[in-house]
This record gives sequence, structure tokens and C-alpha cells, in this order.
Amino acid sequence: MTADFSFKVLATDGNARRGEISMPRGVVRTPAFMPVGTGGTVKAMYMDQVRGVGADIILGNTYHLMLRPGAERVARQGGLHDFARWPWPILTDSGGFQVMSLSKLRKLNEQGVTFRSHIDGAAYEMSPERSIEIQGLLDSDIQMQLDECVALPAKPTEIERAMELSLRWADRCKTAFGDQPGKAMFGIVQGGDMPDLRVRSAQALKAMELKGYAVGGLAVGEPQQVMLDMLEVTCPELPQEKPRYLMGVGTPDDILKSVMRGIDMFDCVMPTRAGRHGLAYTRRGKINLRNARHADDHRPLDEESDCPAARDYSRAYLHHLVKSQEALGAMLLTWNNLSYYQKLMADIREAISAGALTERAATISEAWARGDLAKL
Amino acid sequence: MTADFSFKVLATDGNARRGEISMPRGVVRTPAFMPVGTGGTVKAMYMDQVRGVGADIILGNTYHLMLRPGAERVARQGGLHDFARWPWPILTDSGGFQVMSLSKLRKLNEQGVTFRSHIDGAAYEMSPERSIEIQGLLDSDIQMQLDECVALPAKPTEIERAMELSLRWADRCKTAFGDQPGKAMFGIVQGGDMPDLRVRSAQALKAMELKGYAVGGLAVGEPQQVMLDMLEVTCPELPQEKPRYLMGVGTPDDILKSVMRGIDMFDCVMPTRAGRHGLAYTRRGKINLRNARHADDHRPLDEESDCPAARDYSRAYLHHLVKSQEALGAMLLTWNNLSYYQKLMADIREAISAGALTERAATISEAWARGDLAKL
Repeated sequence: MTADFSFKVLATDGNARRGEISMPRGVVRTPAFMPVGTGGTVKAMYMDQVRGVGADIILGNTYHLMLRPGAERVARQGGLHDFARWPWPILTDSGGFQVMSLSKLRKLNEQGVTFRSHIDGAAYEMSPERSIEIQGLLDSDIQMQLDECVALPAKPTEIERAMELSLRWADRCKTAFGDQPGKAMFGIVQGGDMPDLRVRSAQALKAMELKGYAVGGLAVGEPQQVMLDMLEVTCPELPQEKPRYLMGVGTPDDILKSVMRGIDMFDCVMPTRAGRHGLAYTRRGKINLRNARHADDHRPLDEESDCPAARDYSRAYLHHLVKSQEALGAMLLTWNNLSYYQKLMADIREAISAGALTERAATISEAWARGDLAKL
Repeated sequence: MTADFSFKVLATDGNARRGEISMPRGVVRTPAFMPVGTGGTVKAMYMDQVRGVGADIILGNTYHLMLRPGAERVARQGGLHDFARWPWPILTDSGGFQVMSLSKLRKLNEQGVTFRSHIDGAAYEMSPERSIEIQGLLDSDIQMQLDECVALPAKPTEIERAMELSLRWADRCKTAFGDQPGKAMFGIVQGGDMPDLRVRSAQALKAMELKGYAVGGLAVGEPQQVMLDMLEVTCPELPQEKPRYLMGVGTPDDILKSVMRGIDMFDCVMPTRAGRHGLAYTRRGKINLRNARHADDHRPLDEESDCPAARDYSRAYLHHLVKSQEALGAMLLTWNNLSYYQKLMADIREAISAGALTERAATISEAWARGDLAKL
């Protein structure tokens, strides 16, 4: 931990980097996966379990928190860390992505966005300045600029317009954020699936000398290869000495391939959402516990895991809980999934230090491809 | 723990008894509250939390388990203890109560009940012998006779018929259960709100020399005073040296008053169900976390509790979780509620040993009546 926000690269392997982000609330080992704590809770998990599986940082959704319980209310409760009982680093998104995907009656212009809450229809305004203000009220350690994220496929003119707007908003967010040594505000590279726009966006953001950079607007409907291509043109344009965060990504395979292209940080609802839908991520791939093949299977999800959810409960029991829609089913599978994601990140970090990421990635991918244990 | 099922009274205070039920899987300190683990899970709880709050025994619902995952399937998984990862004592009900309240197209005769599952409409038969067989497949430590429970108010002739049928079924269950030294089969006193029928039922069951006795058919719609009156006529007819179990009861106040009339064991869905509906049981009475008064309240439910759910989370956060229908809200409130119920039982046991139950009951009731902390 350090008084100032800082990042250092500890080792590299090809384009992959192992590093450490240090800030007053703790150290984030990178490449890092951030569990999503949407509305001040990582769904169906106790925070000590989230920490226990190895998470150094979680993500909070500004949109959800501003609507309920409200940013000012969270501030009165001492900020999001105290409110949710997570004393370690928190990254918040800007709220922009959910305004676009969840809210009603949006109106976007140069100034910002006006929208109505999907919960009760109340009217809100979101500008770059208000987004940073809210993230400050939440006391977020890593704050994100407000941007406009376009769903793909989209027209080139539309992608360019949104990218240019996002750059102007990055500048306003930088001014609004000001000088906060222990915290960071990250800019977001946009540009859809257009390499030249991605490069322009990255270069313009680099010139702003921000403390970190995200790649946004990917994993929004395009094939995986398009996403990887965009990373290949974007990452070289970003400064080596700053962390790089790929927003909203992804599957274990997405993560592995993105790390190999220079990404340091990830967040995704996949492990938590899948856990509420009977799906388990394991080193043998994704397992659907709803499947009748598990009904009489006394074996655990993964006997070698050190996560109790993976190691100590039979598939038969998990199958029963999922079929019966019992809360414990979601609790155990979410726990298993976050544990698996963190284990994957730890393996990746270790392999980078050993200069063996290519081989390790092949081994990991082969195990996924071999699939689950044979039916009993 | 003992190889044989046994009960001993350690202390009495008026009609209240402090005791110990001992069996191969563990000791149950009485008066005891049994959390309800309906379908092989105490909803929204990890079993180590259930144990951690002080539960010595949990209840499993035969009706739910026979339908899903099925008793034979649980047996193949090593019984309910292994399946659900609760190695300590388990009591199962007979399934009769839920057949009457949940299933469709019931047909009851001397032989037993035929019914259709409320889940998928499949046809089942339940007889005294099949109920005991199923409870054996579950490997339940304390098994209950099949009985017919009549909702109150009911006609005297109907109450008497059901009571007499339940006695004949008790006899058949005793035969079916046979000689199992480490386990017990309890009979169930019926007779509705009619003192003479309650006495006849208790006397007939006493003559069968069972290992324990339940009082059934109460808390089914009648006023609390009727329930307490029935306990006052029933308990003196039951043998002093056998445990007495009041089925499906109840509120903390019901429990306190029933202990003072000679009851040793309780089960109820109230603490778990209330926990999923935003309600917290505390020493200051029942608290509705949905209430807006909690929205900005940084205080915990009970700063003196040793349960983390009660002590470490603000009411503001709990209010937020409940309003947002987050799983963690149900998880924390269920934990708090089971912790409070177990704390109440521990206080009651201690007071009985000290010969101070009347005073302690008054102190506890006064604290409930004073109610919650003043609004901030």
C-alpha cells in the first residue's frame, strides 16, 4: 500500500504484464479480475468470501448506486467501503453504460445525458462532472470517465462521433477529478471495431496523461476476434507504465487471450450471473448443474480446489439445490465461480513471472477443451 | 453422545425442564429450537453458520424431500446428513402435514393418503409404513409418526376421528420403526382444541411407550391462549422422562410460554421465512427493515450480539439490501434470526438451571414490549 496511486510492472512475457497497482486501501495484483458488486453487494456472497477467494478489488456500478440507495446516502454512511463492508480498493464505472442499456427516455447531448430510472421513472441528469461527483461521494478509489459506448455493429460516422464525444468528456472528467494523489481517474478508449479510430482515441487519451486507461465498447456483440484485433492495435498506443483495463470482459478464454495482448484488469458479471443460473466455471470448462447427469453424482465440482464450494459439496446436492431454486445453490456456485476466476488470474500471474504464459495458456485451454469428468 | 437414544432432565423450574437428548450423532440441549431445513437446506444459510449460531439439530421435511430429490436418491448419497453436509442430529416430520397443506387431489383413508405432487402432479402414496420407510432412507435420527392434523376451528366429531386415526397410525409406525437403539420415533398427540380428546390421545400414546412425544395440531389458526390451554392439559399426561416436542411453533413469545408449560423442543419456519421478507427478530422485538426509518441509520441490529449479521452491518445497508431484493439481505437476516432464536433458547436453559425462569421471562418480554431503539 502507498499513499499515492501507483502502478509498476514486475514482469513481462510477450505483451503480457504482471504488475501491482498500489493505493492507500491496498495493492491490486495484476492481471486482476474484479468481481462485480453492482448495488453494493457481490450478489449472493459475503464480502469475506470475496476477499477469501483472492479478490484485491471489486467494481461498483455508479448507475445502480445513484438510483438506490443514492450517492449522497452512501456518502452519509461513510462511503461505499464502509457501507458494504469492503475496506479494500473499489473501482466504479461512470454509470454511462447502464444509462444506455437500462434507463428509459434517454436524451444525450454535448452536456451529458438525461434519463429516467428503470426502477421508479424518476428523472436524473448525468454529466461528466456529475459522474465524477457521484464516484467521489461513493469514495471510489479508481473512477472512470463518462463515455458513450456504441453497440456493434454500428455506422462508422456514429462510432466516430461517440469516440470524439468521449474524448471531450474525458477532458472534462479529468478537470472535475482534479488532483487526488491516492486515487485515480481512468480514460476510456472508444472507436468500435475501427482500428484507426481506436488508435486516435488511445493517442488523444495518452496525451491527457491519465493514471490509467480502459478499453471500452468491446464485448458488445462483436466476434471475439474483432475484440482481440482491437486490443492489438490499441495496447501499443497506450503508455507502458499505466494500467490497462478491458471493461466488461469476459469469459476465461477472453481473459487469457486479452492478457496476452497487454491487458491488466478485467471485470465481468459472468461468474456471478452464471452462478445464479446453475452454471459452474471450472478448470474442466463450464458445467451446467441443471443437467440430469449430475443428479446421482457424489463427486464435487473439483476435488483439487481449495474453495469449499468446489471441493466439499456433491454435484448431486448442487443439482438438487439448483433444480429447487434454493438460495444456497446460487451462493455455492457464485463462490465456486469467483474462486475459479481468481485462481485463473493467479495462474496467469505466476506464468508471466516464469516467462511461461504461452505454454500455460495452452495447458489451460486444453483442459477446458477436454471438458468435464466422464459421467459416473 | 451415546450409542442409544436417551433423554435426561438436568433441572426443572416450575413445569419447565432443562435437559439433554443424547444419540450417536450428537447431544441436543433442551429446550431446543430446530431450524427448518425444508428440502435439505436451511434456506439462505451455510450449514456451518447454522451450527455456529448454536443449533444442535435441524428439521427436514419428508414431503419435500420425497418429491425432490427423492428419498431413494438421498439414500444413495449416504443419507440426508451426508447429502446436506449436516453431520449432527436431524429430525424429520412424517410428511403428513405438507401432504394436507400443499399437495393436490388428496384421498385419505384408513390405509393412508394418496396425493399428487404440487411440483409436477406425479402420484404418490403415503402410509404410516411408507413414511417411516422414507424417514429411514433419509437416515433421520428422530422420526415422526404419520398423523392427521386438522385445521382449527373444526367439528368435534372430525377432531375425534382424526385423533383416533392418528393413534392407530402411531401404532403402525411403532411397528414399522421396530428396534433402532440409536434413533427414535415420536408419537403425536392430537385432539384439536378439546381438552378431553388431548388427554385421551396423550394417555394412549404414553401406553405405547414411545421414545418421545410431540404435540401436534396446534398453531393452526387458534388463539395463543387455546394452544397454551391444550399444553396445560396435555403435558401432565406425558411421561416426565421423555422429551416433548411442540410442532411448528412458533414466535419467541410462544416458545417462552410453552417452555413454561413443559415443552422441550420446537421447530418453526418463522425465523427463516421472516429473514427472506425483511424482518429481523431481536431482543428488542421484531424489526421491519423495509421501513424507511432505517434508510440512514448507521447502527447495527444489535451491537451486543455475537452474530456478525446482527452486530457488524448497518441498518442502512440491510434496508438497502432488502429494498433491492438482494440475496445478501435474506442471508444476513436469516442468520440474525436463527442466531436470536438460539440465543433465546440458551437464555431459557440457563434460567431454568438457575431456577429463575419466571423472572427471566418477564425481563425478556419487557424488552420485546419496549421495542426497538428510538429513531435516529
